[in-house]
Amino acid sequence: MRPTQIQERVKLFLRKLQAIGVILMPNVNKIEVEPIGFVKRTSRDEDVKDRRLISRVVLKNELADGLDGVEEFSHVFIIFWLHKISDYEKTVLKVHPKGRVELPPVGIFATRAPNRPNTIGLTLVELVKREENSLFVKGLDAFDGTPILDIKPYDSWDAAASFDVPK
Amino acid sequence: MRPTQIQERVKLFLRKLQAIGVILMPNVNKIEVEPIGFVKRTSRDEDVKDRRLISRVVLKNELADGLDGVEEFSHVFIIFWLHKISDYEKTVLKVHPKGRVELPPVGIFATRAPNRPNTIGLTLVELVKREENSLFVKGLDAFDGTPILDIKPYDSWDAAASFDVPK
Repeated sequence: MRPTQIQERVKLFLRKLQAIGVILMPNVNKIEVEPIGFVKRTSRDEDVKDRRLISRVVLKNELADGLDGVEEFSHVFIIFWLHKISDYEKTVLKVHPKGRVELPPVGIFATRAPNRPNTIGLTLVELVKREENSLFVKGLDAFDGTPILDIKPYDSWDAAASFDVPK
Repeated sequence: MRPTQIQERVKLFLRKLQAIGVILMPNVNKIEVEPIGFVKRTSRDEDVKDRRLISRVVLKNELADGLDGVEEFSHVFIIFWLHKISDYEKTVLKVHPKGRVELPPVGIFATRAPNRPNTIGLTLVELVKREENSLFVKGLDAFDGTPILDIKPYDSWDAAASFDVPK
């Protein structure tokens, strides 16, 4: 059999699998990300859940230009890495919603719990000011030293006109 | 000098550095994430920017329980990996906002452009239905085969009561 014939047969076989409902997942298993910066808090003992506090998001010097123009936005999303979650905690698939033990456990993707397979944090913050490679933001619930993965400006398509959440 | 004395001296030195404004970045350089699933579109040729289209987010079978209860939410954030961006594109720090060449370039963190140091995508979608390890969502601007990193339910704190964006 020629290589092109083999290719054709493989394609046909895959199409048959898909036709009967088999889902083919691409073979992407490990993705590497690198922090673009870190969270700097006034004190290590601050209550990170206090949304009135201001934290500093310090980018690596070489990325400073990437912030140009961000001052035009009032709010940004901070995407960060929850570096304090243990490997064991990442395997937990069900938790009590909002830590309320009186409620039955739900799936981790139905909560914003920090322990998840990929411990990525997402918080909408108010942009207070920018200074060179730093953003001063209000409302970030991340510890001092937390690695930052991305910053995205908040725009109209991020706001759901109306939405439902569990009671 | 005893080890505890050395430790004390180092701490004092670091405190002095911080006092004069030096920012100490933790030594976290590589973070590994693993896809929790993949995007499945009806056709590979679909216009991914058409927000009316429905895509399927297929989680790995072993993570299916993590979706329990997500049906109670009308909207979720899909956090995904923009796997088609080249290494070169990731180094670009300034782009024309929304691809409009008549506007002066701004920093990548002042846009939602896909090319960024960590090519993480974030899209708010409408949750249509859940079926076992799959979510059917409306409005996801991701290609067929895109690796999914996380799913987070949309809650009240994700909505800015009022916000500013550039004109």
